[in-house]
Amino acid sequence: MTDNTLPVLTVFDWVPETVRGLVRDLRVRWAFEELGQPYAVEKVQARGAKPEGYTSRQPFGQVPALADGDLQLFESGAMLLYLAEKHGGLLPADRQGAWTAKGWLFSSFNSVEPVATRLFHYAVFLKDQPWSAEARAPAEAIARQRLARLAQALEGKEWLAGTFSIADIAMVTVLENFRPTDLLEQYPALAVYVERAKARPAFIKAYSDQLADYDGQPYAL
Amino acid sequence: MTDNTLPVLTVFDWVPETVRGLVRDLRVRWAFEELGQPYAVEKVQARGAKPEGYTSRQPFGQVPALADGDLQLFESGAMLLYLAEKHGGLLPADRQGAWTAKGWLFSSFNSVEPVATRLFHYAVFLKDQPWSAEARAPAEAIARQRLARLAQALEGKEWLAGTFSIADIAMVTVLENFRPTDLLEQYPALAVYVERAKARPAFIKAYSDQLADYDGQPYAL
Repeated sequence: MTDNTLPVLTVFDWVPETVRGLVRDLRVRWAFEELGQPYAVEKVQARGAKPEGYTSRQPFGQVPALADGDLQLFESGAMLLYLAEKHGGLLPADRQGAWTAKGWLFSSFNSVEPVATRLFHYAVFLKDQPWSAEARAPAEAIARQRLARLAQALEGKEWLAGTFSIADIAMVTVLENFRPTDLLEQYPALAVYVERAKARPAFIKAYSDQLADYDGQPYAL
Repeated sequence: MTDNTLPVLTVFDWVPETVRGLVRDLRVRWAFEELGQPYAVEKVQARGAKPEGYTSRQPFGQVPALADGDLQLFESGAMLLYLAEKHGGLLPADRQGAWTAKGWLFSSFNSVEPVATRLFHYAVFLKDQPWSAEARAPAEAIARQRLARLAQALEGKEWLAGTFSIADIAMVTVLENFRPTDLLEQYPALAVYVERAKARPAFIKAYSDQLADYDGQPYAL
């Protein structure tokens, strides 16, 4: 029996191996686990038709979407912010710390994820294109700049904004997009940071639940 | 005489023609103008050395940075959120509207800006590479999907979340990055939306102030 007062997170029912661990509902699941808050799951098809009216809940037809009572949210970054504010957790208690965390939240999505995604495209989806190695070079140069700065910012720190926060959930799940490259291993401070975060029980539970929700699907792509 | 209680926005002292109107302090200037709040400006060199310790204020060495009293902020998205919350403006008054605006704020930076930036790179910085036309095609396909969805979401609306909000400041300044392509003109709803926003007196003032701050610089690149 599903408790119909639980927030409902919309996720994909199946995704191919290459993107497992990278689908963005993982961030929101992780936040729920860190906060000790239960949630329900609604599944939609990754490449099949979405439920009628889905783009009014998620304008780009992506996942996740989140419904909490009659409140509808889209964008995992907004959901992280919402859950942190609702439950009074996952943000440093002091004003400076909270805004530093929010700065890193936006940095993850805007300064780091786009370069990771671009390299991911060249390394995975576009790897058979004759130009992908050449196109990779200038993108990798930008990625190296960003990763070096990030490693510098993490120097002597366990987490980006002091205590573990939504900034770390965002940044760690973003850094995972470098997986098809060997870049992360070249910045040991970052590799260690990612491993530290992924060792948290809340991450392990969230990731395991995400994978379990892909099981037993009748179709393959 | 500068009022030293004013928030201080850190901007570049000069940028080349190709990126004028795209530097991200414009978003924050625009928000200040919409809110009727004065601010002071600190200039740093775009390609020269930054002030000692600048990366502790802006981890990637970019602009803008914002100091409000002893509070330090980085990332234009976080600044928009901060100013909206501080002054109680630029977000719809109802809870759903406010979170819809925050969803679009993240969408602008994470679902639209990365594809715009990638096309901008191919069209401007990498235009002489023999592979840039081929690399452009798959990136343009993603951009078209996103722009079509955005145009659909704006159908029958003046602004993304009902009233004019930080979401529109973010999205309009992000859409400007499509300028070196002819994509925006192919989605008339988006072209009209951008023009509507840029006709606001607060935008005109912010943009004119940003350009004025580039004047009279002794160096060229």
